[in-house]
Amino acid sequence: MLRSHTCGELRITHVDQTVRLCGWVQKIRDKGHMLWIDLRDRYGVTQLIFEEGFVDAGLLALARSLGREFVLKTEGKVVERVAKNDKMPTGDVEIRVTSVEILNPAKLPPFLIEDDTDGGDDLRMKYRYLDLRRNVVRKNLELRHRMAQQTRAYLDGQGFIEVETPVLIKSTPEGARDFVVPSRMNPGEFYALPQSPQTFKQLLMVSGFDRYFQIVKCFRDEDLRADRQPEFTQIDCEMSFITQEDILQMFEGLVRHLFRQVKGIELGPVPRMTYADAMRQYGNDKPDTRFEMRFVALKDLTASADRPVREGIASPSLREGGDTSAGAGEVDLVGGKGFGVFDEASLVVGICAKGCADYTRKQVDELTDFVRRPQIGAKGLVYVRCNPDGTLKSSVDKFYSEADLRKWAAAMGAQPGDLLLILAGEAGKTRKALSELRLEMGERLGLRDKNVYATLWVLDFPLLEYGEAEQRWFAMHHPFTSPKPEDISLLELDPGAVRANAYDIVINGVEVGGGSIRIYRRDLQETMFSVLGFTPEEAQRQFGFLMEAFEFGAPPHGGIAFGFDRLCSLFGGADSIRDFIAFPKNNSGRDVMIDTPSEISGAQLEELKISVRK
Amino acid sequence: MLRSHTCGELRITHVDQTVRLCGWVQKIRDKGHMLWIDLRDRYGVTQLIFEEGFVDAGLLALARSLGREFVLKTEGKVVERVAKNDKMPTGDVEIRVTSVEILNPAKLPPFLIEDDTDGGDDLRMKYRYLDLRRNVVRKNLELRHRMAQQTRAYLDGQGFIEVETPVLIKSTPEGARDFVVPSRMNPGEFYALPQSPQTFKQLLMVSGFDRYFQIVKCFRDEDLRADRQPEFTQIDCEMSFITQEDILQMFEGLVRHLFRQVKGIELGPVPRMTYADAMRQYGNDKPDTRFEMRFVALKDLTASADRPVREGIASPSLREGGDTSAGAGEVDLVGGKGFGVFDEASLVVGICAKGCADYTRKQVDELTDFVRRPQIGAKGLVYVRCNPDGTLKSSVDKFYSEADLRKWAAAMGAQPGDLLLILAGEAGKTRKALSELRLEMGERLGLRDKNVYATLWVLDFPLLEYGEAEQRWFAMHHPFTSPKPEDISLLELDPGAVRANAYDIVINGVEVGGGSIRIYRRDLQETMFSVLGFTPEEAQRQFGFLMEAFEFGAPPHGGIAFGFDRLCSLFGGADSIRDFIAFPKNNSGRDVMIDTPSEISGAQLEELKISVRK
Repeated sequence: MLRSHTCGELRITHVDQTVRLCGWVQKIRDKGHMLWIDLRDRYGVTQLIFEEGFVDAGLLALARSLGREFVLKTEGKVVERVAKNDKMPTGDVEIRVTSVEILNPAKLPPFLIEDDTDGGDDLRMKYRYLDLRRNVVRKNLELRHRMAQQTRAYLDGQGFIEVETPVLIKSTPEGARDFVVPSRMNPGEFYALPQSPQTFKQLLMVSGFDRYFQIVKCFRDEDLRADRQPEFTQIDCEMSFITQEDILQMFEGLVRHLFRQVKGIELGPVPRMTYADAMRQYGNDKPDTRFEMRFVALKDLTASADRPVREGIASPSLREGGDTSAGAGEVDLVGGKGFGVFDEASLVVGICAKGCADYTRKQVDELTDFVRRPQIGAKGLVYVRCNPDGTLKSSVDKFYSEADLRKWAAAMGAQPGDLLLILAGEAGKTRKALSELRLEMGERLGLRDKNVYATLWVLDFPLLEYGEAEQRWFAMHHPFTSPKPEDISLLELDPGAVRANAYDIVINGVEVGGGSIRIYRRDLQETMFSVLGFTPEEAQRQFGFLMEAFEFGAPPHGGIAFGFDRLCSLFGGADSIRDFIAFPKNNSGRDVMIDTPSEISGAQLEELKISVRK
Repeated sequence: MLRSHTCGELRITHVDQTVRLCGWVQKIRDKGHMLWIDLRDRYGVTQLIFEEGFVDAGLLALARSLGREFVLKTEGKVVERVAKNDKMPTGDVEIRVTSVEILNPAKLPPFLIEDDTDGGDDLRMKYRYLDLRRNVVRKNLELRHRMAQQTRAYLDGQGFIEVETPVLIKSTPEGARDFVVPSRMNPGEFYALPQSPQTFKQLLMVSGFDRYFQIVKCFRDEDLRADRQPEFTQIDCEMSFITQEDILQMFEGLVRHLFRQVKGIELGPVPRMTYADAMRQYGNDKPDTRFEMRFVALKDLTASADRPVREGIASPSLREGGDTSAGAGEVDLVGGKGFGVFDEASLVVGICAKGCADYTRKQVDELTDFVRRPQIGAKGLVYVRCNPDGTLKSSVDKFYSEADLRKWAAAMGAQPGDLLLILAGEAGKTRKALSELRLEMGERLGLRDKNVYATLWVLDFPLLEYGEAEQRWFAMHHPFTSPKPEDISLLELDPGAVRANAYDIVINGVEVGGGSIRIYRRDLQETMFSVLGFTPEEAQRQFGFLMEAFEFGAPPHGGIAFGFDRLCSLFGGADSIRDFIAFPKNNSGRDVMIDTPSEISGAQLEELKISVRK
């Protein structure tokens, strides 16, 4: 090694030793007769000292000529500092330098290599290799490394085998859009990059691998939102001869292991909630349970929230089927008082914001503006102040007496000092809007602390959701998910009522993993494809290999996949996954550092037998 | 779990316990009043017994109706066997079954699920999920799993950080052919799949990551030979502030760790040899050193073997430059005796096959045929028998006296009973042919035992090799490899003479890893690209980001990559990597199980703005 020690390891016990350090110039302080350099590497920072009289003039001049981010190899003696710095682990010592070699000079970086940098997003992405020098970014990737190693340690310890599944696979129209790869050896044909190793892990179960996992890159050619990447990483797992309960136990075990080993946090058992309850109580299938503030319906004509439609498409007609979910009786505490908005609504639902009765008019107006934003889409917000003196004051006093309001307050468990916030309208949209308002209130009330972790299993997802635009059913999880055995008979009669053996694990309102018990018999898989609108021929062409595999002795099996980028960002207390990916792409799918995607040569296109359309 | 135990864990201590087992029917033996089923899972095989009188008739009839590979859930009592089987870990016990549930029936598999199967390659690939049920194949993947976990354990323990580098990167014409991925969001532009994460790991060094590794999929769109795959896996590593010696120590440490942990073998230090010596002594840059049988030149006018040309292209003219390698004096023990073949040859070189003097005429003819095969290409083979009585007999007695032959025998260290095998011709081709003959002789003499492991570092590779067809120099390793500092001055004067700080690790004649110390300064990297025939503009367009990164303070760094598939197959004692890949592709790059590559829809092509050329 060019160094004898790293820049993070020298302590008072090293005093008088001659050491060799390598690293980057973090900072130079020049007091004329004395000059200090902070030398940085991955492991820390060590102070070098150059003092007139102690070092020869040439060396001092050399030190003076250095710039930020120069790469040095230095030799010197460890001495005790006069002014110690207890903020850095090496702060008791400094190095009296006897020689400096410039291993590489550096141009002035386009932004400061500091925790608080002056670089904007675009500049930091273009010079990502400089951004990665910043401690805050490097620590994210160190965290990711520890998460990966601990994930493997846990699963290996539980008898899981890590198996690499292929990256060059087959394109299937079901699911998101595939990235494809033209095959030169098979002109006119294409591979696809996997959106997940789903079918392969199921085949490994058919092979008897019993317990499989993989930390694996997956790919989706979707229009990118702020926090999506065209390539992302999953912890992908599958088990045989299990019930859903075995999966829940095994993988909350993984989450507990990670919290313990990586964060030093002991989690209790992960609470559970059905999808129907999550939708009713939080208007969200991934509720943030760091705080309560559950929904209370003042009127509910639908009494069932577990018939989802594909995101963004409301379909009230679908909710007319019989309610198969338990526990939701019809209520109406708001009708017949002449308030048309409530009278016409199929759902009137509210939350109780503890201690917010003193919200000013301006604050309430802010909340009203919040729910009226187009992406939330409520028409208005009704509030009831539960004043400290016990009186109640609402924005609908014209229609409702204090006695009426008192019933609402009682139903919502309000105390004097609380503020009730109520939305009304079509059930699905209203729940969604109130969920956003609940999260906003949680934020305002400081109930969403990044250092507090609330976990939750959401169970019993619907098997199918209806696509109005496509006029057909879609698998809510994927086409290989098993319906609950007791609901199989409904599969062709009332597809929307069928619940799946599917589960998500949610932490702080973020879905970090999801999975299901799989179909493992050909006949049921064929039925499923038929419900999804596949002709038998299409099903056979796309998934014939899997259905045939089921005929050669497939065991009952199920699994889960965790979004690894997301899990890391959650552990790192960050909102964006991008800072937990070494070389992310921007929202146009570009890597601006290496400038890709880019044009390829005519010769390459010719070899691949493809043309670019103008 | 549907089971209480696996099929591999029941022992005599479990007798009298009621257990639940799940697994596949391996075999049924029906003796009429008694019937046994071997039930198999990943963990082993357990015998089930159904005895008339002990089980009800219905259960016996059910058992009788089962077929191979049916998936069962059974319950029963563990009993001691009358006839124990000490060949299986569960052989002391069997299960008196009280219930059987058929979890899934199975069609008759197209080949036997046994270690010795009757299935041909094509059939086993089509039904790979059944092939993976065979113990021998599954054990390969279990070995691979252990190799991966132990690799990570070692590198993590040495302070390496595993960082995922992107899969969607940029196409560069240097190196092998890229797989490309059309970008829908950037029409007319393409990503490429990485042939290795080379530039990214170098950027991570520029970022100060100091020690990086990754077990990572790489891709090359090459015409496939028997043992190449379009996607393959590397253990990819890089370190900063190191010398070549540090890399050699660190990674022979990895190899030793793997042998110790996975095979229980203590390896000594890894011997070292220069490329020049390897070529001279073995005619091969990846010699199989499980056995000696080194080359001895009887005539060598070239005296330098370290100026390689691109594979398959002989270029004698290139060898006319001055010999910069040490230790090879010119010899000639064969000239001037009227044997034109030797007189005209630039190299006459042989090996001594110990104890083979008694080879029959037929055996020697076989060897002659072997070296004359087109892929080896020698014109003929000269032999000298060193008879047990001390006399010498050669195939060139017409030209050479026994005294002449005695000089050869002495030079080659031959003893009575040995057989000398000699080839002559142009140096490069002749060494290559003799290397093949040496390996063949090693095989015949049983010197290539799969359970013996001989490791070797090959050092000081040439930096460049000349492409006759392209009329330019190519990087032998890659364009980022550093020349030896003492050879840099030759870079533009005599490129072929420049040695690189490049190294390969070879085990049993297989190159399992290779790497180099990298260039880390812009000026040297520019010179290198210029030697390789890049215009400054081309170099900037393709690798500008890397050269610019070097200007912002790049540390000295170097690394290595191991071929993980190959390493696993070597540890597994197999010749082919295919059996160590869960879902390999065939020689046409096809996965015949899922039938890919395949056509994609017109809508997909339209979205991607590409067309298939007819």
